[in-house]
Amino acid sequence: MSKGFLLVLSGPSGSGKGTVSAALMEKNKEIKYSTSVTTRTPRPGEVNGENYFFATMEEFEKMVEKDELLEHAHVHTNYYGTPKEFVFNQINQGEIVLLEIDVQGALQVKDKYKEAVFIFLLPPSMDELLDRIRKRGTETEEDIETRFSNAFKELDFVGEYDYFVVNDSVDQAVKDIESIIAAEKLRVKRHSDIKKIMMKGRKDSFEHSKF
Amino acid sequence: MSKGFLLVLSGPSGSGKGTVSAALMEKNKEIKYSTSVTTRTPRPGEVNGENYFFATMEEFEKMVEKDELLEHAHVHTNYYGTPKEFVFNQINQGEIVLLEIDVQGALQVKDKYKEAVFIFLLPPSMDELLDRIRKRGTETEEDIETRFSNAFKELDFVGEYDYFVVNDSVDQAVKDIESIIAAEKLRVKRHSDIKKIMMKGRKDSFEHSKF
Repeated sequence: MSKGFLLVLSGPSGSGKGTVSAALMEKNKEIKYSTSVTTRTPRPGEVNGENYFFATMEEFEKMVEKDELLEHAHVHTNYYGTPKEFVFNQINQGEIVLLEIDVQGALQVKDKYKEAVFIFLLPPSMDELLDRIRKRGTETEEDIETRFSNAFKELDFVGEYDYFVVNDSVDQAVKDIESIIAAEKLRVKRHSDIKKIMMKGRKDSFEHSKF
Repeated sequence: MSKGFLLVLSGPSGSGKGTVSAALMEKNKEIKYSTSVTTRTPRPGEVNGENYFFATMEEFEKMVEKDELLEHAHVHTNYYGTPKEFVFNQINQGEIVLLEIDVQGALQVKDKYKEAVFIFLLPPSMDELLDRIRKRGTETEEDIETRFSNAFKELDFVGEYDYFVVNDSVDQAVKDIESIIAAEKLRVKRHSDIKKIMMKGRKDSFEHSKF
């Protein structure tokens, strides 16, 4: 049986990681989305274990203490994190798990689990990034400058990633990520049983494995 | 400017690496085939530096001595080898260079140049491999058994490779290799200038680089 992997899709604000993630998931229904744990109150219709794992502040702090999260962040008054257990269970079943996250979060994951596949999503240029941040229109000029300056600093961390994808067109970015997924499925290191499978001598031996 | 890379396509006798290489090159004209150096006499029409680099026995031995070859082998009465200079020149110009080679040769390349991308081509099963070796029809039963037993032993080296591709259909094998190439082009480690390119702030900045 082949192991799956965690695909970390990350990039600065304005790189378009939300849009690209959504388009990728829409085209590739077999990819699992990493389910976060949060301390915020469930909204009407949200299901525990589907949209989020809901936890009390105390439960969340215990998870942090026991090192049960791949990363976590404090947003406004609530905590959000990525539970190791969910991700590792899926991977052990051969699944590909997508985690769409900001650069700070990705670097936390890298520290704890460098076996993940790290993709840095880039805007086509810094001019274009500024345009995109501006077009959101919900921010003050000061907010825009802060976001832009953070994006600029975050570029320094691209060397920590395995791959970069330029989000000039969403379609092309999705295709690039699909190539990365296809290649990563063929990595020898995730298939410790290649010789055993060959030895079975059955023509359909590979078809029965996950990949 | 982005660096290219050396793609080493290798596998046991009967894995179909010759057929797959030819189909890959036919579909992807931009890939360069690694030109070997040989001591054998040029056949009519063969051009030095195109089909092969032709060398005298003395010249060849000097190349081995000076560590100018990525690998070399003795076949019948002649030597064949892969000159570093040709490969590295192409890579530095951003090209992808294909080297189709047996497992022993690939392991020599791995020793000298682990930055290459190593693909192990597998038959769908050992039964199928035996069928394929038999169907060549030009060998004695003893030759067939030797080839099969060597292929069996060579499977132990799959762990030295980056990727494996199952050659069940040539079309699918070529597609898998194309995915690997597409992904390897997006490797951060081959693009030391990502931040510099972004900083130019021109929308077409990536289009002017090799990838």
